Amino acid sequence: MSANPVLVEVTRGPLVESWHRGAAAISDADGKLLLALGDVARPIFPRSAVKAVQAIPLVESGAADALGFGPAELALAGASHNGEPRHVATAAAMLARVGRTEADLECGPQWPERQDDIGRLHIAGLKPGALHNNCSGKHAGFVCFACHAGLDPAGYVAPEHPVQREIRTTMENVFRTPLGPEVQGIDGCSIPTWAIPLERLAAGFARLATGVGLTPGRAAAARRILEAGMAEPYMVAGTNRFCTRFMSAFPGRLYAKTGAEGVFCAALPEQGLGIAVKCDDGAGRAAEVILATLAARLLGLEESPEMRPFVEPALLNRNRWPVGSVRAAAALGDAQF
Amino acid sequence: MSANPVLVEVTRGPLVESWHRGAAAISDADGKLLLALGDVARPIFPRSAVKAVQAIPLVESGAADALGFGPAELALAGASHNGEPRHVATAAAMLARVGRTEADLECGPQWPERQDDIGRLHIAGLKPGALHNNCSGKHAGFVCFACHAGLDPAGYVAPEHPVQREIRTTMENVFRTPLGPEVQGIDGCSIPTWAIPLERLAAGFARLATGVGLTPGRAAAARRILEAGMAEPYMVAGTNRFCTRFMSAFPGRLYAKTGAEGVFCAALPEQGLGIAVKCDDGAGRAAEVILATLAARLLGLEESPEMRPFVEPALLNRNRWPVGSVRAAAALGDAQF
Repeated sequence: MSANPVLVEVTRGPLVESWHRGAAAISDADGKLLLALGDVARPIFPRSAVKAVQAIPLVESGAADALGFGPAELALAGASHNGEPRHVATAAAMLARVGRTEADLECGPQWPERQDDIGRLHIAGLKPGALHNNCSGKHAGFVCFACHAGLDPAGYVAPEHPVQREIRTTMENVFRTPLGPEVQGIDGCSIPTWAIPLERLAAGFARLATGVGLTPGRAAAARRILEAGMAEPYMVAGTNRFCTRFMSAFPGRLYAKTGAEGVFCAALPEQGLGIAVKCDDGAGRAAEVILATLAARLLGLEESPEMRPFVEPALLNRNRWPVGSVRAAAALGDAQF
Repeated sequence: MSANPVLVEVTRGPLVESWHRGAAAISDADGKLLLALGDVARPIFPRSAVKAVQAIPLVESGAADALGFGPAELALAGASHNGEPRHVATAAAMLARVGRTEADLECGPQWPERQDDIGRLHIAGLKPGALHNNCSGKHAGFVCFACHAGLDPAGYVAPEHPVQREIRTTMENVFRTPLGPEVQGIDGCSIPTWAIPLERLAAGFARLATGVGLTPGRAAAARRILEAGMAEPYMVAGTNRFCTRFMSAFPGRLYAKTGAEGVFCAALPEQGLGIAVKCDDGAGRAAEVILATLAARLLGLEESPEMRPFVEPALLNRNRWPVGSVRAAAALGDAQF
């Protein structure tokens, strides 16, 4: 177990109350590391942070074009969304294009994130369904890819199903890493998740941003997915969510996607760079601050007032009094790159 | 920043996905440490883990007896509850005894924890109020203490209000630690929280369990509060909550109370011992496993099937498939005491 540096600290009043260790990599598309903080060679589960890559077969196969999917649908295919009405309706409409419904989704049910949406279900006497699951756009994309390819989508979450086999080979190609059973776990939405070193994740996101090292068809598909997310950041997450707020604040300058257990990946098209972050303890609040701090430096936005709430978010209590903040610790703030 | 040991690991498939560092102390009432894992001398904010001590003035002053409070009310005065109907009704009834209402609570509003209770509010077209706040029982106790003492409860959350001054001197006495502005933060419910070393917290909980080193009146009050929590564990937290499940599974054998940001404190009356735990990163899931692992050893219940779900809880995904678990790492599992 590597002792990664403390990258983020959480203050309360005059003291640091909690702190977060982790690792982070910044790479170009050739795998040249601009920054390696902590252990960036250890395989970590990227979880939902690689949904953009999991959506590549949908686009590269021609299914997305055949089904008329635009930026909103492609952004949702790579989303971890709040289950807000537009997310749910868009996922349902994607399924309808191939004659399928919520019943074909194998991700399991999940309550929406926001009280307005939770309340609507309660008032209607309904329980949440698979369309409300934060992964429903990705799963709708899987079903659409399968149907367009003439495959039976049933069982599409299993590692041996052609959908997941195609995703695994796409991931192996983008991240230049063999993905076998020794690094295979099951994700929250029941598809496989394969552990990949941060240095490989960062290089892969640089490839998504630049197309370097990818076939032309794959490069074009990747570029379309990133551009869709940057054009429709609401569809990648939703109201008040970090990914949506961050991409909305700096339009077109980066594609950023969170993953469960403290993961963040990002692609910076102008710089041709990728970022990958993992907090040892799985804390999303720390992964957000690490990602924002590194992106602010790379984008030259360290002094931007718009960047402030991302690099040091205030902690508010139940009366909405500020009681502390989450901020970069020395090993992150002073990192040279 | 001390490098505390890895105490808990979170697995997914064949790998450790995340891990948690932290510190833990086990002490008797004289401050003799049976176990010191990591830095137990650094002051940490105990947050809600010391609600039993914050409830002492209510009992020791005679207010609880004068108002006819039994175990349910005393357990709720030390609770971080789910905002379930019985929690809300009991807090409201406590306030009614002194002619006060929800409007006198200064803890802020909070949605209840469970969907059944959230749904009832939505269906009735209501927003949550201060009675639903997980701290409403503690705050009702503060208002009752103030009114019984002839004090105006208004502003009772402020450090200089007589209610918080009384709590601070009680905490200084129980934990044998001066609590000044250099260790003072604001808690989620807006009262002060003072940072205290784990070794002092553990010794203080041993004093609560034994009365050793406390005045007879304070010892009796502390004993009543712990016994109330052990007799009414549902009132300390609620349905499916760790504190409630753990105290219900091992009735009368320990009083255990969680605090935000990865804190746990416990008192073991038979052994005359106290336990205090803090995860560096603030993770509650890890604090629970540390507390359960240490308590299992002290209670001689390591092989008990009832203990299993507490020392290694399974992680289930959205389809309720087991995908991993949370368990003691070597530094915790192999600790000698």
